[in-house]
Amino acid sequence: MRKELLACEDYARQLLRSDVKSVLEAGGYIFNSGGKRVRPGLTILSGKLFDPDDSRLIPVAIAMEYIHTATLLHDDIVDGASLRRGKPSANAVYGNDVAVLVGDYMFAQGVSTFATFGGVEVLQRALDAIRDMSEGELKQLEVIGKFDLSEEDYFDIIYRKTASLLSTCCEAGAIVGGADEQQKLAMRKFGEYIGYAFQLVDDAFDYVSDTQTIGKPAGNDIREGKVTFPLISVREKLSPFEKQKINHILNKDNSHQEEVDYVRKLVVEKGGVGETFNLAREYIEEAKALLAPFEGSKYKNSLMEIADFIVARTF
Amino acid sequence: MRKELLACEDYARQLLRSDVKSVLEAGGYIFNSGGKRVRPGLTILSGKLFDPDDSRLIPVAIAMEYIHTATLLHDDIVDGASLRRGKPSANAVYGNDVAVLVGDYMFAQGVSTFATFGGVEVLQRALDAIRDMSEGELKQLEVIGKFDLSEEDYFDIIYRKTASLLSTCCEAGAIVGGADEQQKLAMRKFGEYIGYAFQLVDDAFDYVSDTQTIGKPAGNDIREGKVTFPLISVREKLSPFEKQKINHILNKDNSHQEEVDYVRKLVVEKGGVGETFNLAREYIEEAKALLAPFEGSKYKNSLMEIADFIVARTF
Repeated sequence: MRKELLACEDYARQLLRSDVKSVLEAGGYIFNSGGKRVRPGLTILSGKLFDPDDSRLIPVAIAMEYIHTATLLHDDIVDGASLRRGKPSANAVYGNDVAVLVGDYMFAQGVSTFATFGGVEVLQRALDAIRDMSEGELKQLEVIGKFDLSEEDYFDIIYRKTASLLSTCCEAGAIVGGADEQQKLAMRKFGEYIGYAFQLVDDAFDYVSDTQTIGKPAGNDIREGKVTFPLISVREKLSPFEKQKINHILNKDNSHQEEVDYVRKLVVEKGGVGETFNLAREYIEEAKALLAPFEGSKYKNSLMEIADFIVARTF
Repeated sequence: MRKELLACEDYARQLLRSDVKSVLEAGGYIFNSGGKRVRPGLTILSGKLFDPDDSRLIPVAIAMEYIHTATLLHDDIVDGASLRRGKPSANAVYGNDVAVLVGDYMFAQGVSTFATFGGVEVLQRALDAIRDMSEGELKQLEVIGKFDLSEEDYFDIIYRKTASLLSTCCEAGAIVGGADEQQKLAMRKFGEYIGYAFQLVDDAFDYVSDTQTIGKPAGNDIREGKVTFPLISVREKLSPFEKQKINHILNKDNSHQEEVDYVRKLVVEKGGVGETFNLAREYIEEAKALLAPFEGSKYKNSLMEIADFIVARTF
């Protein structure tokens, strides 16, 4: 895929053309801050399962990264984040004002690329994903500190904030590749399932990893009052005292490190992190099964590898 | 136009459908905070000069207001504004996080409506306008405190941040109405010229009006270091001492009210506000002249009235 990804980077540079300095600076900063290009990669590979016109597939793939980057810029404002991928976040370097506006620019540039190269179907799916992501983040804000967040609501949130765009990448690739309805649905579901797995693993790492490794402060979810699957999966095993204590910590304004570590340790001991990785692995298996009907190819193999990598990654 | 505008409000409510509470609350708050619906009005009237299908024109018109509303939400974050149309701004009530996300939602919802009802041409023009608005705001941030901002740069900024969307409204109406290329160009220019006039008058009011009347703090531009046409137009008439003093005030972090009033008074005395209103009036005359070739109708008359209202308004 090297050739296609290089073509992507090339196209990405073309898209980031503006006579306004801060678009180039802040846009370039965040766009080149070490993202793994998972979304363009999924889009291209999904397309290559079929018979795509590369002159359409590459722009659509890179537009997915534009949308993702815009979302990161805006999410960092929402979270008041100061670190992203181990580097100062764009809002920390350039300010919230530049981050919000450059995000808007990248949304418009990405959407315009979908309209030109993706056709109406890809465009509408991508717009659905943008809506999903903003609604997902908003819903997450609404349930901050909610100890008894239902599993259903948790999955609704992670669908919207993570799985929807990954699902859109895979489906868009299939659309551009000329897949039939059933094939499109399979790719859409493939993206959705690896999306759940991706977010589950992310949520697990908040419990067991360290800041150095994940490139953002570990334990942040607890500090911010976010109830995620590791906690949800062990909630029923907790004593009334433990429940009350965690509830208190989740709703405190400035939790001490010891308090955060208390929650982390307890959830790990009760098996919450193991449960979460197990569920992620199940989703990955389901996702891979969806690819079974497709003819073997290096592209299909790469999709399988990406799926496996999501649960095997150590960051 | 009452019928069409009521249909617009109806359609706007349909667009604001989400199962996420804060979308409805914050979205509804800003959308119903007393906007004059200038953009949907211009879109509809421009369309009605020709032969539009209302079932397409109304959604396109309201999508313009969605885009505008999204921009207001994001601009208030950029400006750190606490007042908008005389009421607490959405970011002040709901927080920057909700404001940025609901803005994103409204962008996506508006753009999706263009894609469904406006066709590719309207969609691409609208996306151009979104890029223009973010670039315009960014460029404005880059020249904060720049006493010798060129007239050319000033007009480039106000084109992008204000005139581009108004121009898009008029052109989009014409496109949906089935106008030919020359007619579309005329409507696009009409919108652009009234856009310049609109912003010029806005910039003049910052010098002569009061907070009560304009619904946001008067003198804000000076306080924030924004160099606008009233100042540009009198710059050459100032003594070296006056220039230096103004430069200092523009670049100060927390200017006293007396300092702001010093600049306001000086610019008014030198004729800068008069100059600005005169130029706005010239643009309005140019804009109205562009409508001359079109057959007389109540719609054309309303467009003329809107144009006149822009310079005659007292807020």
